Amino acid sequence: MQIEAVDLFYLSMPEVTDEVDGSQDALLVRVRAGGLEGWGECEAAPLPSIAAFVCPMSHGACRPVSASVLGETIDTPADISRIAARVEYDSMDLLQAPHTFSGVEMALWDLLGKKHSVPVWRLLGQSRSHPKIPYASLLFGDTPEETLMRARKARADGFNAAKFGWGPIGRSAASDDDEQFVAAREGLGSDAHLMVDVGQVFGDDVAAAAARLRGLEAARALWLEEPFHAGALEAHAQLAARCQRVRIAGGEAAHNVYMARHLIDYGAVGYIQIDCGRIGGIAPATKVAEMAVAAGVTYVNHTFTSHLALSASMQPFAGLEDHRICEYPAAPKDLAVAITSNHITRRGNGTIIAPEAPGLGVAIDVERIRPYLVETEITVGKQVLYRTPVL
Amino acid sequence: MQIEAVDLFYLSMPEVTDEVDGSQDALLVRVRAGGLEGWGECEAAPLPSIAAFVCPMSHGACRPVSASVLGETIDTPADISRIAARVEYDSMDLLQAPHTFSGVEMALWDLLGKKHSVPVWRLLGQSRSHPKIPYASLLFGDTPEETLMRARKARADGFNAAKFGWGPIGRSAASDDDEQFVAAREGLGSDAHLMVDVGQVFGDDVAAAAARLRGLEAARALWLEEPFHAGALEAHAQLAARCQRVRIAGGEAAHNVYMARHLIDYGAVGYIQIDCGRIGGIAPATKVAEMAVAAGVTYVNHTFTSHLALSASMQPFAGLEDHRICEYPAAPKDLAVAITSNHITRRGNGTIIAPEAPGLGVAIDVERIRPYLVETEITVGKQVLYRTPVL
Repeated sequence: MQIEAVDLFYLSMPEVTDEVDGSQDALLVRVRAGGLEGWGECEAAPLPSIAAFVCPMSHGACRPVSASVLGETIDTPADISRIAARVEYDSMDLLQAPHTFSGVEMALWDLLGKKHSVPVWRLLGQSRSHPKIPYASLLFGDTPEETLMRARKARADGFNAAKFGWGPIGRSAASDDDEQFVAAREGLGSDAHLMVDVGQVFGDDVAAAAARLRGLEAARALWLEEPFHAGALEAHAQLAARCQRVRIAGGEAAHNVYMARHLIDYGAVGYIQIDCGRIGGIAPATKVAEMAVAAGVTYVNHTFTSHLALSASMQPFAGLEDHRICEYPAAPKDLAVAITSNHITRRGNGTIIAPEAPGLGVAIDVERIRPYLVETEITVGKQVLYRTPVL
Repeated sequence: MQIEAVDLFYLSMPEVTDEVDGSQDALLVRVRAGGLEGWGECEAAPLPSIAAFVCPMSHGACRPVSASVLGETIDTPADISRIAARVEYDSMDLLQAPHTFSGVEMALWDLLGKKHSVPVWRLLGQSRSHPKIPYASLLFGDTPEETLMRARKARADGFNAAKFGWGPIGRSAASDDDEQFVAAREGLGSDAHLMVDVGQVFGDDVAAAAARLRGLEAARALWLEEPFHAGALEAHAQLAARCQRVRIAGGEAAHNVYMARHLIDYGAVGYIQIDCGRIGGIAPATKVAEMAVAAGVTYVNHTFTSHLALSASMQPFAGLEDHRICEYPAAPKDLAVAITSNHITRRGNGTIIAPEAPGLGVAIDVERIRPYLVETEITVGKQVLYRTPVL
């Protein structure tokens, strides 16, 4: 098949707030080839990602992503590798390129799965899709009481795992944070998995992060996520060395396989969290999952938008029985829910599995997302380089 | 002073080819505050960098660069640090942000230097500006004969150092490459510095790169630049361990200080090459220069566009007497020459120095660049987010 069209759609809630909730907008990618359609989703910042797809070439190693994709043939996984290698080399100097290509790559896998009538995880060489324990991603409350209520609600909603993030953590005394951790554990009950995400709040201040370890250990947190700037490998390793049972988690910012590998090798993380919408798509994420197995580290997806992104993010580790924890968008905005007409729902025992249907196994609900479409136009010189395509 | 306006200007040659020559387009940044003007330049991909400045917020950790800059006060270097930290944190999920902010940051230093009537290198705490040996950046010819001619011409043009890059290297047998290295050395003469840049052609194939070491050592090359993907730290270190006199160079892709540090600490490079138009500007580049001194590694600028970019790139290591080699755009396109009305010219002994004049010490030639201006417009929803400002 030849790639005939790659169309990008910028969707947004009518109002976007400064809450750290990534489900407030979306960039969907539709790829058409051989009478089939594949869909993918880029994580964050729709406009710069559109620009990286359509921009004029700056020079031979700074070409738009489109130059490596349009008109290419796509019949086997090897074709996706070839296209990905071309993007990596020819768009070497275009920083945004991996984010843009991530959505395109997902769509190529979806297309290929549909062509061969198999789920993507099977194309990736995995023989079955194992159940995962979805965790609810929640924000800490402003007070421990609020956090307690949110934790109780998550448990009442049937979640056996929850991650609390951001909010006041790291912004006042460590003892205040301890109270938050106690509240989260109390609300979840003793048998649920508790994780904590502090959104890089400690920069590279190891002592400040370490001051929270006692409280995290006491609350039996499984991991402490993103204590530092994603590049602060030494700080990650130093903090990891001071942990008893809690592990350091990170990796969502990785925009290539090397960055994830360095977090494992030099940063000593215990959980490597990959966003398929940033790292370049499903194939590089699968490479990281293989590295994680080899290094004795646990692979986790990073996903907080639609079930299209969720399905894509489950493919790389669907076949890894022992890597069971899975980020699950627990309370996404209406837009993110509207993107797919079917959803990856929790089963009786609370677990979820990657779809068995061909491709990514989710259908795009074109009619429901139409109201969220943001008409966008980019003109350079006298030429319209981008205008929202017909959905 | 309060930052009143940040204006971005997309400039381009009438025709852009796939030659790996970064001087074919430019993104200039003009910052206005307190009746003064500062100028900076972002490296590569003008359109995505404009988009990263003006895009709507996706969520609290994915804000446009403009949100951290416009309306801020700017009186001292500490103000630049504060703004940079805000961009880093609030635009954490916007991959293109460091490239965009790089040009803004340069302009802020230029502005501050003008306000205090001192060159930027003095604001950075350096007591004098030491002479540098400029090297001509050239492409290998298709044949050794062509390379020989180019090397002879560089020498005739007064260069005592030259770097040859890209072209056929790594694309056929190692013995073919050896002939190219011999030709380059012959053309330059025995007393000039010779450097070789292979533009990541070996991916992460250490054996393939190592097969070129004998030829590089025989030609007395000072460094082998970017043998691998910028993230392939292990490959860099493995190759470095196999070198005798030649050193590995890299770092141009670093979009934060950590990436440069890892090339030094884990990649074992001997030369760390920083592009101020990518790493976030002059202050993070200066941090890398300090790291290089501490680690016994040599700092080198990466610059192949205008003398505005060249001046900015010289500031971080102007005061380092022993870090003498300096990339110098030897044959830039007319656009890059037109950007400044004064230039950093070679003196009698062939060396150059960072300007003594206030700020970055170069003046923008508004009339000469006007013909290169590319009118650009970005509309999202019904709102025009960007339209080329009045130059």
